[in-house]
Amino acid sequence: MSQYHAVPVPPMSIRFDQAAGTLSPEGPTLTRRMSDLEGLFRDHEAWEKAVADGDPVVYSVISSPVPEIDRELPQSITTIQPGTTGGELWMTKGHQHPNHQGEIYLGISGRGGLLMFDGTETRWVEMTPGTIGYMPPGWAHRSVNIGDEPYSFLAVYPGGAGHDYGWVLEHGMGLRALSGADGVELVDYVEG
Amino acid sequence: MSQYHAVPVPPMSIRFDQAAGTLSPEGPTLTRRMSDLEGLFRDHEAWEKAVADGDPVVYSVISSPVPEIDRELPQSITTIQPGTTGGELWMTKGHQHPNHQGEIYLGISGRGGLLMFDGTETRWVEMTPGTIGYMPPGWAHRSVNIGDEPYSFLAVYPGGAGHDYGWVLEHGMGLRALSGADGVELVDYVEG
Repeated sequence: MSQYHAVPVPPMSIRFDQAAGTLSPEGPTLTRRMSDLEGLFRDHEAWEKAVADGDPVVYSVISSPVPEIDRELPQSITTIQPGTTGGELWMTKGHQHPNHQGEIYLGISGRGGLLMFDGTETRWVEMTPGTIGYMPPGWAHRSVNIGDEPYSFLAVYPGGAGHDYGWVLEHGMGLRALSGADGVELVDYVEG
Repeated sequence: MSQYHAVPVPPMSIRFDQAAGTLSPEGPTLTRRMSDLEGLFRDHEAWEKAVADGDPVVYSVISSPVPEIDRELPQSITTIQPGTTGGELWMTKGHQHPNHQGEIYLGISGRGGLLMFDGTETRWVEMTPGTIGYMPPGWAHRSVNIGDEPYSFLAVYPGGAGHDYGWVLEHGMGLRALSGADGVELVDYVEG
């Protein structure tokens, strides 16, 4: 047996309710308000105003009990609220895995987009219920709500991959997702 | 960028149709007939008879295009047909990951069971649509159809984990799943 067998978590059953967007039992929940997204929106003044004007919840992440440690395979459900700030669609902070490993997202409700950036090239995958978006190792990723209702997806990711949010502040994501006629208009990235 | 960034597979979208049990685009498909399950059923004579009597397909595995290589996160859908051989429910061969890493199964149709064995202890998780079965690193796993219709599940697993089928032939799985009054009766493992 591996040294990793020393039971960080036992075999278990987790109920994944796609209609409700829940995992049960549930691990830690993370809530991101507008004030947590400093430096990410193109329109800094619109961001400041939104923070002052109630600092709304932009997205939340509920996790399964499987921990984020090497060799485990945790899961989480992210729900992004619909909205725009300075015309830019509400989104996650985005991150790179410092330990480059692949990840999947499975769309479960609403309409979203998955923006991926490897430092040079950008890819956009539209997400609806039943879409698996695949992020190969080395591609930073951000999710965007492009619809009028909450957008939820299940993530499955190697527990030792890590989250580097600073990478996105430094390198950007290649494109920005603005509200457009068909839900989304992708434009070149300019600094926030 | 990591050395692994050299594009074994690009960012992509994969359509996961839970009603049909398909992934699109699709990678390799594996078909396991009764003759592929030598040495796994308790009743060797019943197994020989089933091989002679048409050698039926017991289960099939369709894969996504994401390859089974280190740092990638491939997916697959396994469908086990309903049936018994010598009273033992139809099942997968079962395997251990030689590079111990966690894996998840998501039940999508039918009724199944997930048998896990770490060489000493055994765990059984009943699987219905919406159940995530979690296999921690170091636990061998086998799936069983405990219902009257095909049982299908989505697997998500680290591409570098590997598959050791010999481990199960050598160590068994702790328990066997026989057809019983409520679908399944778990009994102590005896050699096939």
